[in-house]
Parts: sequence; C-alpha cells; structure tokens
Amino acid sequence: MTPEEFRVAAHELVDWIADLRLRVTDLPVRSEAAPGEVRAALDGPAPELPEPFAELLADLDRVVVPGITQVQSPGYYAWFPSNASLASVLGDMASSGLGALGITWQSAPALTEVEEVVTEWLRELCGLAPEWRGAIHDTASSACLVAMLVARERATDLSENRGGLQAEPVPLVVYASSQAHSSVPKAVLLAGFGRDNLRLVDVDPVTFAMDPDSLRAAMASDVAAGRRPAAVVASVGTTGTTAVDPVPEIVEIAAEHGAWVHVDAAMAGSAMLLPECRAMFAGVDGADSLSWNPHKWMGTVLDTSLLYVRDVAHLVAVMSTNPSYLRSAVDGEVTQYKDWGIPLGRRFRALKLWFHLRLDGAEAIRTRLRRDLENARWLAEQAQQAPGWEVLAPVALQTVCLRHVPEHLRGGTAVDLDALDAHTLDWVERVNASGRALVTPALLAGRWMVRVSIGAETTERRDVEQLWALARSAAEEEGA
Amino acid sequence: MTPEEFRVAAHELVDWIADLRLRVTDLPVRSEAAPGEVRAALDGPAPELPEPFAELLADLDRVVVPGITQVQSPGYYAWFPSNASLASVLGDMASSGLGALGITWQSAPALTEVEEVVTEWLRELCGLAPEWRGAIHDTASSACLVAMLVARERATDLSENRGGLQAEPVPLVVYASSQAHSSVPKAVLLAGFGRDNLRLVDVDPVTFAMDPDSLRAAMASDVAAGRRPAAVVASVGTTGTTAVDPVPEIVEIAAEHGAWVHVDAAMAGSAMLLPECRAMFAGVDGADSLSWNPHKWMGTVLDTSLLYVRDVAHLVAVMSTNPSYLRSAVDGEVTQYKDWGIPLGRRFRALKLWFHLRLDGAEAIRTRLRRDLENARWLAEQAQQAPGWEVLAPVALQTVCLRHVPEHLRGGTAVDLDALDAHTLDWVERVNASGRALVTPALLAGRWMVRVSIGAETTERRDVEQLWALARSAAEEEGA
Repeated sequence: MTPEEFRVAAHELVDWIADLRLRVTDLPVRSEAAPGEVRAALDGPAPELPEPFAELLADLDRVVVPGITQVQSPGYYAWFPSNASLASVLGDMASSGLGALGITWQSAPALTEVEEVVTEWLRELCGLAPEWRGAIHDTASSACLVAMLVARERATDLSENRGGLQAEPVPLVVYASSQAHSSVPKAVLLAGFGRDNLRLVDVDPVTFAMDPDSLRAAMASDVAAGRRPAAVVASVGTTGTTAVDPVPEIVEIAAEHGAWVHVDAAMAGSAMLLPECRAMFAGVDGADSLSWNPHKWMGTVLDTSLLYVRDVAHLVAVMSTNPSYLRSAVDGEVTQYKDWGIPLGRRFRALKLWFHLRLDGAEAIRTRLRRDLENARWLAEQAQQAPGWEVLAPVALQTVCLRHVPEHLRGGTAVDLDALDAHTLDWVERVNASGRALVTPALLAGRWMVRVSIGAETTERRDVEQLWALARSAAEEEGA
Repeated sequence: MTPEEFRVAAHELVDWIADLRLRVTDLPVRSEAAPGEVRAALDGPAPELPEPFAELLADLDRVVVPGITQVQSPGYYAWFPSNASLASVLGDMASSGLGALGITWQSAPALTEVEEVVTEWLRELCGLAPEWRGAIHDTASSACLVAMLVARERATDLSENRGGLQAEPVPLVVYASSQAHSSVPKAVLLAGFGRDNLRLVDVDPVTFAMDPDSLRAAMASDVAAGRRPAAVVASVGTTGTTAVDPVPEIVEIAAEHGAWVHVDAAMAGSAMLLPECRAMFAGVDGADSLSWNPHKWMGTVLDTSLLYVRDVAHLVAVMSTNPSYLRSAVDGEVTQYKDWGIPLGRRFRALKLWFHLRLDGAEAIRTRLRRDLENARWLAEQAQQAPGWEVLAPVALQTVCLRHVPEHLRGGTAVDLDALDAHTLDWVERVNASGRALVTPALLAGRWMVRVSIGAETTERRDVEQLWALARSAAEEEGA
C-alpha cells in the first residue's frame, strides 16, 4: 500500500472511528455473538490478492463491531473500565505511523526518552517518591511476573547466574491475599515457586483486605519449618471488591524477612492522581515494585501498564542482555528498557501516554475520576436505602458490590443461599441481555454478587441512574 | 477529547503520517540525538491543561522524528527489517479506535476469533502442518519465555502445581546454539533453569549452524551426570548470520530424551511464505513450538509475534487461570487466549494482520520478499568479486555478512586482527554517519563484521547499489 493509498483509506477510517464513538451509546453493550459465529463469518482461504478497503470497513461494521463488548459505552460497568481515550488513540496512531523500532536506546532514542518523560510525569502526578523509576509493560500480569522474577533473584542472590532455582536449598515462599487477582498466582507459578509455596493469606471478613496478623503468622510458620519468605504481593484495589491491603504493615512484616513487596494497583493506581485518594496508597513508597494500568480507569488505550521499581540496578541485573549486535558507545549513559522487562522489541507506546496527558491535561482526567467516585457513592447510597438491597463491601473506589435479596429469602429464617445465588445470576443476566448495560457477576466468600464497576469515560450520572432503575426492575419485579 | 475534536486532529495526523512516509527517503537513517537530548527538549512538569494538537505535531517534527532510526527508510539495513506496512497501520488504527478489551472470549468474541482466523491463514500460507495452533504475542522474547516455561512444566509433569522447580530433584538442562539470539539465554534464565544448566552448543565453523553431534554429546554427558535434557532451542535464521540449525536432527536427538523443541524463527519465519524457501524449515513440524515475527520482514507493524504450538492442552494447563469474574457459560466451547501466554489483557492485534493480509494480499508480500532475496544475492556477488571483500557466511536469506580487508592487512603475513577490527568499525561508522544508510557491526567468531540486512519495504535494487557504492567508498578509499 502506497502512502497515497493509505491517505485515502485512513481518512475514511478516521471518520469511521469518530462515528463509532458517537453511536456507541446506541449499540448493545454486550456482544451476542455465539461461539464460532465471527469465525464462520470471516473464514475462508488466506487472501492472495488485495481487497478493496471498503470491504474491510464493511466487515468491521457487519462482524467486528457486533462481535465485541462495547467497553467505550456509557452502559459498560463490567470487569473494570477499559477506556481508550481518543487523545491516546491519536498517540497510538502516531506510533504505528512512525513505525519506530525500540530494541535499544540507539535504535530510537526518542522512544526511550519520551518513555522516561511520561513515566516521570506520572510518578509526580501520583505523588510517588522520587526514587521510583517506571517503564511501560503490556499488562499488570506481565509486570507481576517481572516482580516475582526479580523477587526470586533477590532472595537467591541471582541464582539465575548459577544453578537456577533447582540448586537453591531453602524453599522460597510467596504471600498474597486470597482476594488477589488471578494473575498473581499465575505469576508465582510461572516464576517457578510452585503452588505449595504460595500462601493465600486470609482477609478481613468486612473489608476483604489482607489480615496482617495472618501474614505475620504464615511467615513465622514458614520460617519455623525451614522455608524463606521471598515476596509479598499487596493488592491495592482488588478485582472483586477494590479492597485495599494494609501496605504499611505488609512492608514492615516483609522487611523482617527481607521479602520483596510488590504492590498490584492495576485498577486503583489511577486514583493516585487524586490527592484525596492518596491515603489508600499509604506505605507504597516502602515497597519494592508497584504496577498500575493507565489503560484501565485513566484511559490510555490498551496496552499501557506501568511497573515502577526502586532498585533499577537489581532489575537490570536480572533482565539484562548485551549481545554484540545491540551494543553502542553510549550504553553506560542511557536507559536500555530491554533490560527492564521481558520483551526485547518495543513499539513506541510512550506516545499514547504523552498525547493523552498533553491533549487532555491532568486536571480534566482528575475531574472525570472524581465524577466516577461520586457516581459510585450515589449508587451505593441508593442501594443502602432500597429494601432488599445490600452493598457487600466498602466502596473504596468506583466499584459497587451489590446483592438483592428477594422478600421470600429475607427475614429470620435460614436463607436459602443456593436460591439467592440463582436469583442473582438470573437478574444480572436480565440486565445484561437488555443490551443497555453490562455488569459482572462474581463470587464473594463463595456466593454470587454483582459488581457494578463505574468508570467508562462516557458514563454520566444519568447513565448510572438508568442502570439502577434497570437493576431494580430486573431484580425486584422478576425476582420478588 | 470529543469524537469531533478527534476527527479534526486525526485527519491532520493521517496527512502527517502519509507525508512522513513520502519524505522518509530524505531523512537521515540514523538518529544523531545525543543521550538526554530528546528528554531535555521535552521535559518539564506534567501537563495540567490541554495543549493544542498543533503543538504535539510540531514536537513530533522537531524532536521525535529526528530522534528515531528511520527503519522505514530505503537506506535501513541495520539489525533486522522492522517494516510497518501501511495496510497493517490501518488495522492498528482500527484496533485503537475500537478500544476493545481482550481478557476472555466473552469480553470480545471477535478479538479472539479474528486471531484464530489470521493465525490459521498464516499457518496455511507458511505450509505448516494442520495441528499447529497459533496466538499473537508481543515479541519472540516473550514467546521464547513461554516455550521455556511449558518445556519446564512438561519435563516436571507440572511441578508448578506442587513444590515448583525447587522441589525437582533431577537438574534440568536446556540447549541452544552459541549463535542463538540473546533472548534465548534470557528466557532460560528467567524460567529458572540457571546459567549452569544452559548449554551453548558449538556451531559449524562455516555455516554457523548448530552441530548436531555436539548436541548429542552434550546431552549424553548431562544424562551420564544425572541431569535431564528438558528443552532445545533451534534457531532457524540466527541474528548474526541467519544460520539455520539442523532441525530434523535436533528433533530426533531431543526425542531420545523427551526434550521440548522450540524453533526460534523470529526473522526467518517470513520466508516460510515462499515455497522455494521451505527447505530451510524442514523438520519444524516435528518441533513442539515455533515462533516468528510478522513485525520484522513480512512487515505487520510492531508488536506482532506469533507462537505456534502443537499441544495446546499442555500450554493451557501451564498458563490457565479461571477466577469467577472471568467465567462464562461458553468457556468449554471457545478459545481463551488468556491461557495461551503471560498477559491477561490483549488489544485487538489480530486486526493489523487481518488488514495487512487482506489489503496487500499474500502474493504481493511474497513478491517483495523475493525482491529482497535477489538483492541480497546481488550484493553478495558484488562483494565476492571485489578485491579485499569477504562474504563471511552463507546468504541463506536477505542478510549479507561482510568484511573488507584493506591491502596492507592482506596476504601471506599474519593479519593484524585488531587493526582489521578497527578498520571495520571505522568504515561502518563512516557509512552510518553519512545518514544515507545504516548497517550494524556485530561480532562473528570474536571479530567484527558488518551485517547488511536488506528488507525494508522501500528498499529497491538501486538503493542496494547505492549502499554498495557507499560501503566501497567508505572502506576502500579511507581504509586503504
């Protein structure tokens, strides 16, 4: 495709994107595609000859748009927000158009140094201590794996340079709360620690935050049995209920054993932009690593996850490679992000953060986050006042955990919990099948609840009001 | 930013991208930015208020474009090709604009199923056996790490579900050629095997391909010492010289020990599109995993790396997670790519492959690859015929490894190898400082050579002719 052919098609595509964002409100939030339906609609032999651009645009409308959850819709309350702010989309377009190759500083100095600029901007905006240094990763899953690897190597004094993990005689143990995201156990297992050496520490039954006494006891028990605490993952904003683990205590307890502390703030990290939310992050400056995802609530388009560490020298010691074809005269003076994570090659992802922050400005982002916090508080208040409705966890951020107990399941008699589960799954399906909103059912203490995760960029108070009416109607009228 | 504000800015950006691609020929290929220069030009406090789009565009021109290697330039011969075909850029724009969230099949059925379609198209186009199934990863580094993890877990019968690697009594060993890419040792170390358990197997001194007898002997020696061969990484197209390890023999030797075979064809994989190149890939259908990067020579914009495996069930057993908030009724019927790699969240990267293949068509891509192969053969012939020039390795693909020996260092006397190294680094710097071309010096058998890696989408025969004239001038006139 020539630049002039690109110009024509790309102008069409820009209008298609702008129009899509305007009409997203009218699209069903949930995709109703059946398994295999998209594939069947698009399958066939690989294209040998060029097709007209119009056919691709038509397929986007015919198959792709109905085939995705509209996470940019004001009716999107599922999982967590996944905003793709249009300012960041511009940055991503610039990145793709430039086609820069990030393998070393030398291959694209600007790719590296813009990443330094934006990670430093976000450190400042988040109120983190000056010694933190950040890099962009794809997801918090990868960031957590990196954290577990560097924790493993700190605990073993770089066993990777000797006989590896098998040659280490003292079993290493990792701790996280039972509410930690599924990527945490995955990272622990992939890093080689083994499930037997992962302790899922009890949480407070009301706040769902890690119980520090249980952490202390678990570590003491492991040490008594000849094992060594290597790392603790503290969740600030769990996936289930946005619970906040007690980081100051965790840092103190971990320090007694020399264990690495990784803070997983994938969702909640955006709240560090708000000074009034910083109390949630008390103690994080005492941790060793911290990850959060601008691609969630803050809204820099996927994939934009940040991993900050304080001891860059150790990170680089674990991750570095230095083959001759990647050496240059300036290696000692510059940042080589290839040595800060798993991939060698990187696209110019810093541009999407750079465009997002410069074109929207931090203040507008803060205003939007505050709107969402207020909307969540409003929804929680409505639920607390409505008969039969329960708010199941503290509303620390923008996610409200709800359950509706129909009248025949209320009262002094033993509640039929299976019936309650069925009722929950029933009304949530009615909400989601409406196409007007999407919320996520999840298990909390073994029973189904409904997470309403407010924070799509387009979601205003009137949308939350409509959702609340929809939920009441779905739960109260049918389930009564 | 509203959709209408986006529309205005994005149209400007599209023209900027198209114009950049038209003028890339006139830009210096190598960035002359000094360490810290870009950062100094852009630093300052984080933006609180929105800036006009024109200022960002101006900064792109003022700082970013001069701050990157122009890998889309016809004068780009460094590292490996990193083409960002404009058809794929359109697909990436669509991905960013859609802002889809790939965490489960349910969150975006089309994101999953288009990925199934394009990985199946590429399997067919590459002539791979039907049992291979592929997924998109960011880079071959990550793909190699995944391969090492699944190899580790196969050798230990899923030790991750028990005591992890530390509890395994028999030391596990991994094998790769001494010419393997730096990401291979990195993956082996990160997977926990340890450097002592990584064997860098000798290569043939002429072809630089792994010597199968050395592999066999190394494995026998390890087994005799009570260790267990867990994996072999076979490189098809090494980074230094595009050497091709003997995959059929490697597969056979590995099978004797039950070791996993991962084929790293990051660069060379694009050549599988050409039936006349398939002989290079003989035996790969007997391997367990295979990765290659469409974001290199084939030219689907970064980051687009493919990892194919034959035993998906084992891959999923190692990588799977299944928390309640990600469950759905259709889990058993659909592909859950979250369980095929490290990250949970994925952007809609399949779109860039889908657009690239449909808008350009496979035949045009093959024609371009064949052009590059012919250009490489032409350059090698020129060098072989020119006095003082040596082609140091077989030209298996599009990379030519050159050295120029000035007259005073030729002949029957012992060559001053340090002086030859200095001469090589000297003339390559003159070529690169010209701004008209960029080539990469690299070590081969401990001595510097120059890699000319042909394959930028824009590089035609006349460009290679100019490069050859430039290299001769730089090496012969100054260095004689």
